[in-house]
Amino acid sequence: MRRKPDAASRRRELCDAAIQLLAQEGPKGLSHPKVDLRAGVPKGTTSFYFRTREALLLGLAERLAELDMADLRAVAGPGTGDPDPPPVSRLAVAITRAVTGDGLPRTRARLALMLQAERRSPLAEVFHRNSEIHAELHREIVVQSLPPGEAVDPDVVSDLTFATLNFISGYLMSVATDESAVRSAEQLDQILIGIADGLAARSRQPTR
Amino acid sequence: MRRKPDAASRRRELCDAAIQLLAQEGPKGLSHPKVDLRAGVPKGTTSFYFRTREALLLGLAERLAELDMADLRAVAGPGTGDPDPPPVSRLAVAITRAVTGDGLPRTRARLALMLQAERRSPLAEVFHRNSEIHAELHREIVVQSLPPGEAVDPDVVSDLTFATLNFISGYLMSVATDESAVRSAEQLDQILIGIADGLAARSRQPTR
Repeated sequence: MRRKPDAASRRRELCDAAIQLLAQEGPKGLSHPKVDLRAGVPKGTTSFYFRTREALLLGLAERLAELDMADLRAVAGPGTGDPDPPPVSRLAVAITRAVTGDGLPRTRARLALMLQAERRSPLAEVFHRNSEIHAELHREIVVQSLPPGEAVDPDVVSDLTFATLNFISGYLMSVATDESAVRSAEQLDQILIGIADGLAARSRQPTR
Repeated sequence: MRRKPDAASRRRELCDAAIQLLAQEGPKGLSHPKVDLRAGVPKGTTSFYFRTREALLLGLAERLAELDMADLRAVAGPGTGDPDPPPVSRLAVAITRAVTGDGLPRTRARLALMLQAERRSPLAEVFHRNSEIHAELHREIVVQSLPPGEAVDPDVVSDLTFATLNFISGYLMSVATDESAVRSAEQLDQILIGIADGLAARSRQPTR
């Protein structure tokens, strides 16, 4: 007999099914009975774990945040100690993962959910908290990517975090709405390096 | 007696009311009767001009495209011939307009509409066409912004268009969902110059 999953893993399972639904059909396509069907669980299961639509959306947003954080922490962590740096930065690899395979439905679901979160709602609060942690992790990644040995100007780090975060989020949105916009990790890497070099160089010259 | 507006200006008026509704209440808050109310026109007017929800959304997307293009064309056009260049680029000014005053509801409405457009639908088609024109206008702006006298590498123009377009669209999305993310036109300008310098410099050095 199949062992009954515990509540936490059941909730994860339902949220993962909801992510797929949201990505494929948008907010209109998301309902408790459809999540039951997609997850292959008995009717009423989703309603048992998430009483209201609001509760389901919140659970979904928290699950998305959990998955995103795991990906981003892997990139922000210390390097492998490999004396030969990899041909493509780990950030470029992470971005590429977010627009291919399992990453794409998650990116689509996140965008759909973010834009339908009413301002100052609990859902918006989850995204807000999440984007603050995102920004902090990006700041770490940016500091690691600067040329070693150079003094780090906090204004440059702030501008560069702002520029790369927005570039990445614009790129994710463009691919989420039009898959033909996808670029290779190598191309993204070259552009990220160009942005970093350009913003770092600006701090070494008088304002133009 | 108030003169009856012609069909074209009536449609514009209804679309402008729909933009405000969509920006404030999201796709769920948009309905034909609500647009009547918001525009202050007799009941049934919106249904007369836009028979279905699909027709209303299409009209809205086309109106948004029309307004956006007018703004962007003003930026892409030839300079004023002023011997002293303005302190802030016209692109930075245009971006700032899109996140303040009348621009913000339009930005919010565009994002809400874009993400709910089903792939390969007529609505997605409008956005796709629009984004191609956008990219073309941005390419012109990018070429104008490069240091004069230097040969223009087509790969640099392509990368730079890609980088600035995505940076701008990420920035618009972040402000649309959280107004505290707004930056001054001067700050945006410095970042755009940094991105442009960095990507242009990469074409003059061997791949790192």
